[in-house]
Formats: sequence, C-alpha cells, structure tokens
Amino acid sequence: MPATPQTIFVGVIGVGGVGKAFLGQLHHLSQRLSQANPPTDLRLILARRSNKQLFSESWQPLNISNVLRDLDQVTQPLLPLQETVDYLATAPGKVILVDNTSDPTLANSYPSLVRKGISVVTPNKKAFSDTYALWSDIFSGAANGTGSANNGYIFHESTVGAGLPVLSTLKELVETGDEVTKIEGVFSGTMSFLFNSFMPVSGSGGKFSAEVTKAKALGFTEPDPRDDLNGLDVARKLTILARLAGLAVESPTAFPVESLIPQALESCTSGDEFLQRLPEFDGQMEDLKASAAKEGKVVRFVGSIDVPAQKVKVGLEKFDASHPIAALKGSDNIINFYTKRYGSNPLIVQGAGAGAEVTAMGVTGDLLKVIRLLQ
Amino acid sequence: MPATPQTIFVGVIGVGGVGKAFLGQLHHLSQRLSQANPPTDLRLILARRSNKQLFSESWQPLNISNVLRDLDQVTQPLLPLQETVDYLATAPGKVILVDNTSDPTLANSYPSLVRKGISVVTPNKKAFSDTYALWSDIFSGAANGTGSANNGYIFHESTVGAGLPVLSTLKELVETGDEVTKIEGVFSGTMSFLFNSFMPVSGSGGKFSAEVTKAKALGFTEPDPRDDLNGLDVARKLTILARLAGLAVESPTAFPVESLIPQALESCTSGDEFLQRLPEFDGQMEDLKASAAKEGKVVRFVGSIDVPAQKVKVGLEKFDASHPIAALKGSDNIINFYTKRYGSNPLIVQGAGAGAEVTAMGVTGDLLKVIRLLQ
Repeated sequence: MPATPQTIFVGVIGVGGVGKAFLGQLHHLSQRLSQANPPTDLRLILARRSNKQLFSESWQPLNISNVLRDLDQVTQPLLPLQETVDYLATAPGKVILVDNTSDPTLANSYPSLVRKGISVVTPNKKAFSDTYALWSDIFSGAANGTGSANNGYIFHESTVGAGLPVLSTLKELVETGDEVTKIEGVFSGTMSFLFNSFMPVSGSGGKFSAEVTKAKALGFTEPDPRDDLNGLDVARKLTILARLAGLAVESPTAFPVESLIPQALESCTSGDEFLQRLPEFDGQMEDLKASAAKEGKVVRFVGSIDVPAQKVKVGLEKFDASHPIAALKGSDNIINFYTKRYGSNPLIVQGAGAGAEVTAMGVTGDLLKVIRLLQ
Repeated sequence: MPATPQTIFVGVIGVGGVGKAFLGQLHHLSQRLSQANPPTDLRLILARRSNKQLFSESWQPLNISNVLRDLDQVTQPLLPLQETVDYLATAPGKVILVDNTSDPTLANSYPSLVRKGISVVTPNKKAFSDTYALWSDIFSGAANGTGSANNGYIFHESTVGAGLPVLSTLKELVETGDEVTKIEGVFSGTMSFLFNSFMPVSGSGGKFSAEVTKAKALGFTEPDPRDDLNGLDVARKLTILARLAGLAVESPTAFPVESLIPQALESCTSGDEFLQRLPEFDGQMEDLKASAAKEGKVVRFVGSIDVPAQKVKVGLEKFDASHPIAALKGSDNIINFYTKRYGSNPLIVQGAGAGAEVTAMGVTGDLLKVIRLLQ
C-alpha cells in the first residue's frame, strides 16, 4: 500500500530569468518527489511577478508547465505584497516561499516570515548583506538558526557563487569545528570575464574599456556596467561569507571596497556616457598590467576575508601565473577556503557563478533541503 | 524555559587515525549541540576497536575525552560484532553508528542495520563499491533511499575525496535535474603526489621508482605501495560516483583499470621486494614522460566516467599543462563535473582528499546531516 503523500505548499515570487529556470526545475522535482517513497505532494499555490499574480483555488496546485502563460492572462489587479504573504500563511500545511527577486522589501519581511512558520529559499542577496541587525533578526527566528523548531527554515546558497557549493561548504567547515583562516576568490562572473580577457596568463589581452564594452555586448554585465565595476556586488557576497565565518560585519560598506569607476567618471549621468569616456583611463590600466607583468604576475579583482584578523576587503590584487586564481577561465568563479585542517593547500570550489540555470539549481537544491527537514 | 533536549545515541566502531580525529570532532559537536536551541543530547554509548569495546551503563553517555584511555583499561573479552549491533538496536531512541573501519563484514551488515532503524555514517568504501546487489540492498532499505521513513539514514561522503564536497555535489546535480555528462579527476592522494613529483608542469621531476619510495617514506602510500599502484582504490571511488550518476556498475572490476604494477613484478612476494625491483622499469616510465612532453603535455593517473556512453575507466592520461588536472599540487584531489548546465567549463572541487582530520570532517558533516533529519 503506497504511503499517504505529505503535502508541501510552494509560493514563487519572481518569474524572470532565474525564476523561469527555477519553474522548470520545480516541475522536474515535483514529478520526482511524487514518485518517491514516501511521496511528497509539492503544490505550487502562488506565482507572482512585478505586475500580476496567480493564486490557487482552494489549495489545489497550479499547473507548473502553464503558469507563465496563465499569469499573462490574469486581469485582476496585483495585491499588496503583505496580503500575498498573509495568504501563504493560511495554507493548510507547511509552506516554502521561493524569492527569485532582488526586492529589498520582500527581503525585509524574512524575519516575520520565518516566525510565521514559512520557510524561505532565495538567491536574493539583499537581506543577508544589509545591516547586521537584519541578519541577526532573520537567524534568531529561523529554525536552522536559533529560532523555534516550528518556525520556518531559510537557505540562500545561490547568494554566493550561484549553484556552486560555497555556503554549504563553509557552514560544514565551521560546524564540524575547523578553523577557517582565510577565504579568497573571484566572486563575480563579470569581473572574472573582464580580467581573464584584459590580462590572460598567456597573450597580451585587450584594452580595459574595450573588454568592458565587449562584456556588456555579451550580456556578462548589468544593463549599466557601473553596477558591476563599483565592487558592491562582490562586497555583498563577502559580507555574507564573513558573517557565516563568524565575523559580525556591519554592512557591505563597512570594509575597504575598491571601485573600478575612475573618480572623474563618477559624475557620468548614464552608463552610455560612462562607457564612452572610459577609454580615457585605459592608460592607467595598461600601467597596472605592465607593473604586474614585470613581477611575472597577473591582475585579478578579488575578495578576501582574513578571519583571525577580522579583515575583509575587495579590490585588485596581483597573482603568480601559476596561482589557481590566475588560471581561471571565461566567467568562472573560484573560491579558496584556507583552514587549519586543509593546511597550505586550500579547499577550492570553481565553476560558473552566474547564469539562470545554475542560480536556479542552488535555489532548487535549497528547496530540497527544506523539504527533507520538514518531513 | 529551555526546551527538553532530544537524545540521539551514537556508537563508534574504529578508533584508529580517522576514528581518533572523529572523536575530537564529536566532542566539539556534542558541546555545540547541547547549547543549541533546541538542544540535542548526543550520547556516545559504544566505542569499539579491533580487540576491545566499551559500552555505556544504562544508556548514560561515555566521556568522549577519556574514551581512548578508558578503552585501554577494558579487560572483558571482545563481543562478537553481531551482539554489539544488537545492543545498539535496543537503545531507547534514535541511534547512529559511525563505522570508521575498512571492515567488509561490518559493511555487509548495513542493509540490516538501516532496516533496524539504525543510521550509518562512514568513510568505509567497502559496502558502496562491492556488488551492485549490495548497493541496491542498502539503498532500498535506507530512509534516504527508497526505504521506509522509519528506517535508518546512510551517508558516506568521505568515501570519495574525504571531506571535500564531492558526493553531496553530485547528488544535488542529479536531484535538481541537471544532466551529468562526464566526471573526471584525480581521486587518490598517493597518485596525485606521485605524478605531480614525477612529472611536474615545470621542471623535470624524479624517476618513478624514486618517487614511490619517497611517497612511502612520507606516509603517502599504504604500508604496501602496491595497494595504491594497482588502481583498485581509485576504481572503488569511481564505482561509487558512477552509481550515484545513475550507472548500474556491477563492481570495481567491471571496467578497465590500469595497474602501475609491471606484469613482471606481479609475482613479488613482498612490498619491499617490489620496491627493490621497481627501478628496472624506470626506463618505460621515462619513455612515457618523454612522449607526453613532446606533445606539451603531462601524465596523470585519473579516473573518468562518460555517463551517456556508460563508460568508466581508470588509468594514465595526458593533459595539457594549462589543464586544471595538470596544475594540481602536493597530494590534492581534483574532481571535475561536466554537466549540461555548467557547459564547457566544469564545476570543480579540489583540495586534500586524504588525511585523518579531513576524512573525519566528512564523517562529522554526515553525522550532522543525519541528526537534522532525525529531529
């Protein structure tokens, strides 16, 4: 006799690039889990995007395959976010909210969500890299923090390195009692691509401004490339890692972050104006390249955390051509964990750290973790 | 009011190198969990080595800090393994058995253990790389396989790459619906050290027999180095990975495994005789080195799994000097996962894949996973 399936309700907010890839993976996962022993009935009961939302009628599941098309046909006005969340909290069972947005308002509601028993999985960095008070508020409420076992769980693997096993690895090092001494790596696909092209280990590479223009054309930058070049994205990721390593970092602006936006271009009123004027500063970048080459090194844009010294920084560093950080390819990320147990050679995780499918994979992996913990 | 702690009973079999390191980590973990919210009371109730064992009186915990000393003072004769297991099954709560041995007899009992509700965590490769029938028997019984939710869980992260996140990463790729196309890497610390020294990316390296002798002197080989050079250890690891990737590999001898023991030396009656005669074959190895160098490549001892073609193999391969496998250092392992989502650049995990502390870390991490699933 087959076991009665356990029902878990899932709400998805954000159905853009990552959200769409996630829905594909959710479809696969829900089929898999419905046939597992014991089976799990994973019910999508909410899909919400910036201007429309779709609720399930009487808790019956939405059709995952058609949900994007069905959303298009919705004519009712969008409910306020708070009402949507209140709806989720009334579901007759365990609820997991998947936040595939980069919305800070939704991020700010995580502390109350987990305290309402709603679990959250998300690639949204906002909540975890904002004030330390918000971080503490989230994890003092979450069941996988110090909150009640009846509260919701919260996982955010994809906030650093997308689907790469970065946060799970760091947590395991810490929880099993290793001493993490240093974390160092390339945490931005954009910065990786830019510097691997600007100064490859062999060959001369292109002018910096030309590489930025090329990266934008290939879709490797934000619509305004200054949002990558200011270093804030990397600073947010470092804030998250440092906190998991035990440092009470106040915010992503509480440590030195080197911006690659020349001071004279800070006043540019558009990304286009910025890109047009960037070649004026190619000379400075060529000097940097030449000075590194003279030492037999290459330049990379990295983040590092010195845990015992409690120092976090983000910016340009020189590396020997034989260093794993120098040898990185394409837009890959690399994360080096130096620990007492691992000694002089770090534990390294490397691979694509951006892209819809790999980011969604980190989210789906987290969803699966929560499902298992709820069973 | 503090919550009532949940009690979980732990039995440890094998207190040698890995087992000793594990006990240190267990001590740290049990303190951590006793202060968590909600607290967990992790009780060591059994410690067993090859000739002695120590039981708890009336389910009160043994003192982890003193357990090695207390074992020394035991004068009672060793109970048969079956009686020890029967004792564990009578504990008044959830039980986790930690098998830090390489004992095939204990490994063969995993199917019955998980069906008795006892969870197992272990770095012991034996059960997972034996017949496919045994593998199926284990996972059709385990709660994290297709067994009843009341059965025991079983995790074995340290059977491949020690504490590196290898099996957990592969499982997540598969479970979230990625298509793994190829897995390739250096899976033996001994083979890594031997070939990184025999043929480094820059410099000429030493004679093969001299590197084997050096590796043995440094403690990087088994007491008899033929146990590393025959390739079986790597074949066992590949068997485990291939099965997790969905291939029903019958055994570690069901696919081509290249042995580095020259045919003429297969009749040697001791490791010492073998080491003494190995220099006779240095010429062959030097030829191999020269032929690779002519192509601008280096030689490495690797394992690979071509998933769509269902082909597994272990042996020598040539790699470009710029390939991550060529650039490996010391006795590190490297594992490259090529998948549909990750495209042309693989997801890479790299670092120490052997050693007591890092192996124990994989075991402790698995223990923590089981504890969370039991809560």
